[in-house]
Amino acid sequence: MAGTKFAYVKSFELPDVLLPGTYILVRLDGHGFHRLSQDHNFSKPNDERALRLMDHAARDVLNEFKDIVIAFGESDEYRLVFTHFLFRKSTQVYNRRHAKIVTTVTSLFTSSYVFNWSKYMTDTPLQYPPSFDGRAVLYPSPQEVRDYFSWRQADTHINNLYNTTFWALVQQDGQTPTEAHAALRGTVAKTKQELLFSRYGTNYNSLPERYRKGSVLTAEHTEATRPDIAENSGDASTVTPATRAEEGSGVVASRSKSKKSKVRTEVVLYHCDIIDPSFWGARPRLLQ
Amino acid sequence: MAGTKFAYVKSFELPDVLLPGTYILVRLDGHGFHRLSQDHNFSKPNDERALRLMDHAARDVLNEFKDIVIAFGESDEYRLVFTHFLFRKSTQVYNRRHAKIVTTVTSLFTSSYVFNWSKYMTDTPLQYPPSFDGRAVLYPSPQEVRDYFSWRQADTHINNLYNTTFWALVQQDGQTPTEAHAALRGTVAKTKQELLFSRYGTNYNSLPERYRKGSVLTAEHTEATRPDIAENSGDASTVTPATRAEEGSGVVASRSKSKKSKVRTEVVLYHCDIIDPSFWGARPRLLQ
Amino acid sequence: MAGTKFAYVKSFELPDVLLPGTYILVRLDGHGFHRLSQDHNFSKPNDERALRLMDHAARDVLNEFKDIVIAFGESDEYRLVFTHFLFRKSTQVYNRRHAKIVTTVTSLFTSSYVFNWSKYMTDTPLQYPPSFDGRAVLYPSPQEVRDYFSWRQADTHINNLYNTTFWALVQQDGQTPTEAHAALRGTVAKTKQELLFSRYGTNYNSLPERYRKGSVLTAEHTEATRPDIAENSGDASTVTPATRAEEGSGVVASRSKSKKSKVRTEVVLYHCDIIDPSFWGARPRLLQ
Amino acid sequence: MAGTKFAYVKSFELPDVLLPGTYILVRLDGHGFHRLSQDHNFSKPNDERALRLMDHAARDVLNEFKDIVIAFGESDEYRLVFTHFLFRKSTQVYNRRHAKIVTTVTSLFTSSYVFNWSKYMTDTPLQYPPSFDGRAVLYPSPQEVRDYFSWRQADTHINNLYNTTFWALVQQDGQTPTEAHAALRGTVAKTKQELLFSRYGTNYNSLPERYRKGSVLTAEHTEATRPDIAENSGDASTVTPATRAEEGSGVVASRSKSKKSKVRTEVVLYHCDIIDPSFWGARPRLLQ
Repeated sequence: MAGTKFAYVKSFELPDVLLPGTYILVRLDGHGFHRLSQDHNFSKPNDERALRLMDHAARDVLNEFKDIVIAFGESDEYRLVFTHFLFRKSTQVYNRRHAKIVTTVTSLFTSSYVFNWSKYMTDTPLQYPPSFDGRAVLYPSPQEVRDYFSWRQADTHINNLYNTTFWALVQQDGQTPTEAHAALRGTVAKTKQELLFSRYGTNYNSLPERYRKGSVLTAEHTEATRPDIAENSGDASTVTPATRAEEGSGVVASRSKSKKSKVRTEVVLYHCDIIDPSFWGARPRLLQ
Repeated sequence: MAGTKFAYVKSFELPDVLLPGTYILVRLDGHGFHRLSQDHNFSKPNDERALRLMDHAARDVLNEFKDIVIAFGESDEYRLVFTHFLFRKSTQVYNRRHAKIVTTVTSLFTSSYVFNWSKYMTDTPLQYPPSFDGRAVLYPSPQEVRDYFSWRQADTHINNLYNTTFWALVQQDGQTPTEAHAALRGTVAKTKQELLFSRYGTNYNSLPERYRKGSVLTAEHTEATRPDIAENSGDASTVTPATRAEEGSGVVASRSKSKKSKVRTEVVLYHCDIIDPSFWGARPRLLQ
Repeated sequence: MAGTKFAYVKSFELPDVLLPGTYILVRLDGHGFHRLSQDHNFSKPNDERALRLMDHAARDVLNEFKDIVIAFGESDEYRLVFTHFLFRKSTQVYNRRHAKIVTTVTSLFTSSYVFNWSKYMTDTPLQYPPSFDGRAVLYPSPQEVRDYFSWRQADTHINNLYNTTFWALVQQDGQTPTEAHAALRGTVAKTKQELLFSRYGTNYNSLPERYRKGSVLTAEHTEATRPDIAENSGDASTVTPATRAEEGSGVVASRSKSKKSKVRTEVVLYHCDIIDPSFWGARPRLLQ
Repeated sequence: MAGTKFAYVKSFELPDVLLPGTYILVRLDGHGFHRLSQDHNFSKPNDERALRLMDHAARDVLNEFKDIVIAFGESDEYRLVFTHFLFRKSTQVYNRRHAKIVTTVTSLFTSSYVFNWSKYMTDTPLQYPPSFDGRAVLYPSPQEVRDYFSWRQADTHINNLYNTTFWALVQQDGQTPTEAHAALRGTVAKTKQELLFSRYGTNYNSLPERYRKGSVLTAEHTEATRPDIAENSGDASTVTPATRAEEGSGVVASRSKSKKSKVRTEVVLYHCDIIDPSFWGARPRLLQ
């Protein structure tokens, strides 16, 4: 058989199983999004369209991988674009093979981001293919997982407060970026919030939660049918009602539903506090 | 500082450096391309448009990663879609971090595939985001690298001969897939080639080399300027002349060119034999 | 400087940090102990001197590594010689470097085994250097750790019951090993226990716990001084009183004691049930 | 079956295969040998008995592992005790399992060191069990292997020259260690050699090669029987003739010999230059 004598090269592919019994956290990070956001005129400090596109791509990943129990997306439209996916600790997805898991999640997210770009960035054609990198981190216990997400959400808050103040100085006061960075150097959160309020009349805490808290997507069981939500399956044509539903109930949902069972699993989108224990306390299944 | 007490979770991210002094082979594999090719009416046994799209995405990866010295793409439009990238053994890309390398290559390939889909599959809109997985394999010596590519090209030949015969039986003789598989079971290459010739007048060896040999992309130094090629920078608007150039000279080239230096590096596309030592002998820089 | 141009070879030593927050279980396994036990005329089915030597070597390891919270030794003097060491999950020993930890534990155990051989095997000079191999396994949660030790102790029981019955058939009934194995094939525990009692008058459950349960060593805090125990610091000259203390109180202890603190840490030897939750319930510090 | 429900814990033992086609270098490092050498009154700067004991233990490892092609031992009797073992790149020992290889080599070396101590350190009983740690490093090409050994032998030379001068200052001039270190700070090799010659009449280059070059052990094929060497099978009773043979021929040999074949494999001990290419050139089999 042709090729047989070469098949020994397969033996160089070594096993890369991730330790069982640990939560698998996959973190995606956008490449060169500083330039991408400039080339495509993202709004500063936050571009809601781009954030919704991120949410859409994350939702596609959750719909594909049923063992992802929560995702968290953060972005400052300026430098950082992160999405974090947590697989349940008992997951056997791809037999827990490291490269397979981390590349597939990264690829599917990338693919959905490009595929759905035009639905959100309606008047801004994508000029070149953006990319992401991914990595997997294992966490042995629920406490570490919660601390991980707390770390990221605290970071989101810090970055967003900084960026909101920075862009106010630049856009409304005409400061140069260098001046604005200098003005903010070493300031604490309280100082920035007071500056926003006193100078620009902006109450930071009334800005959209999406900007201040990032995006949280969880796969949740629902028993009753919820026709108001069931249609928001990540379809960009429903972005407006989804937004409304979200503002009313705090959720936007999707996920393939089993017709046979009364219990449906839906991907629900929140922009809520996940540092507070109550979020996790109300959802014991996430880290069970 | 908010978040500081959570920062310990960063210590769970372990180093994943790939052994220095080894060739890094990254293999990408399409997910669910059997279904994708059916849903998008790929021609059988080979869809030239889809093959050119693969080549385009691979070229984008080579243009981004200067340390990739050769790529090999194979596809039977039926089950398997593979692309293999080889980094030179001295590469320090991303400090040889495993996850970073393998996810970025996978992501960029995916992104380019989706981004450029409509340029090749002109009348077939992409219906959903396709994905790929990737993995890295290390090879210590040039011999193993050559045997790896020989293994893949031998596999391409075996699959393409099988598929070409299979689809002739199905499309021209009206056999069912089950009948066609049964007719081919256990046959050797010679038998299939004779069947193609005697029954359908097809000389297998005169079929396009792209189908029989796959796609080989290498980064090559060229000293003279080649205006006939310089424009084919992976731009779909030049697909037709690129095709012609290729048929004439066997190459299609691209790669960012240094204006300062007489020596340019170009990505050149071949559909040629890489099992034979002469390919490598003529390009000693590839495995130096 | 001589040698500088060669120093690049150090870059091939890759980091091998073990995942934080996980229990590190190091398992040692004797090499060729079937032959060793024959060459040195070990008693069958259990050689108490050899078991005490194992305990001594394990105690030396616990005295060296303060982050080992429990060890379990099992041996059937026939094929298998295992010792298992559990590091607390927060240990930073050697910065959790895998090779450093597993080789040092293996080396120290081996060294103590050879060094102390003559104290236990008093009339049987060691003929050649025995060796062990080791490996590390990570466990994320207390439940998995307890199940690991339960698995090993259940195995000890199964092996010891089999071997006790086997050697009774061979030594007391004059069966050949082949006959004895055939007689026991497929028998359940109850059958073997009844055979021991009815044919040889042996009540299996009254055999020494050391044989039936293996050796458990833990590092325990004691507040009061215990002069009766403090001297049994793994010194072979105190084997006899140690044995007595053990039979009375179930413990033999050692470990360097801090003079400054009232709380001492001592290595205590048990031959008790560690499958039952009460062992762990009484020692919450072990898996905290 | 008792224990069955616990057997899942075995799934936490992950594969740890070392990349095929690479040389496996196992380096052993003595623990606390500064203290050990003081507690056992090692001669300064070199204790020939201790060096011979190291050679003996290394020889035992080579006799056990037929795929080790060369070992190199270095020691300054003061801080560092290293032995390096190189497995041929095609070795399949223990299926190339990392922990198994590195722990077994470390354990056997340790065991032999303790077992044979009294044969070399005849009037100095071992007071406590010494230990070593080990680690494996992979090298893809012969050049890196040679550079590794060159690096180590250059280091041996540097250390020994320093230590020889240092101890001359301390032992013959009555300097304190602090004074001696201060006197040598920043001096180059030539300066130290001149100091040794001018002040103590010591021609550094005529000191024993064992001290200046370390110990090299290789497994070599010999065709003729060599009865004068065949008895020096690492038996301390033959240390004297072995020394003589070595001084005459530069070699001391051992290794189990096949009676059937004319070609014997013997472990040969050298104290020679391995930085110079001629050593490797004369032994093409080592790195083939």
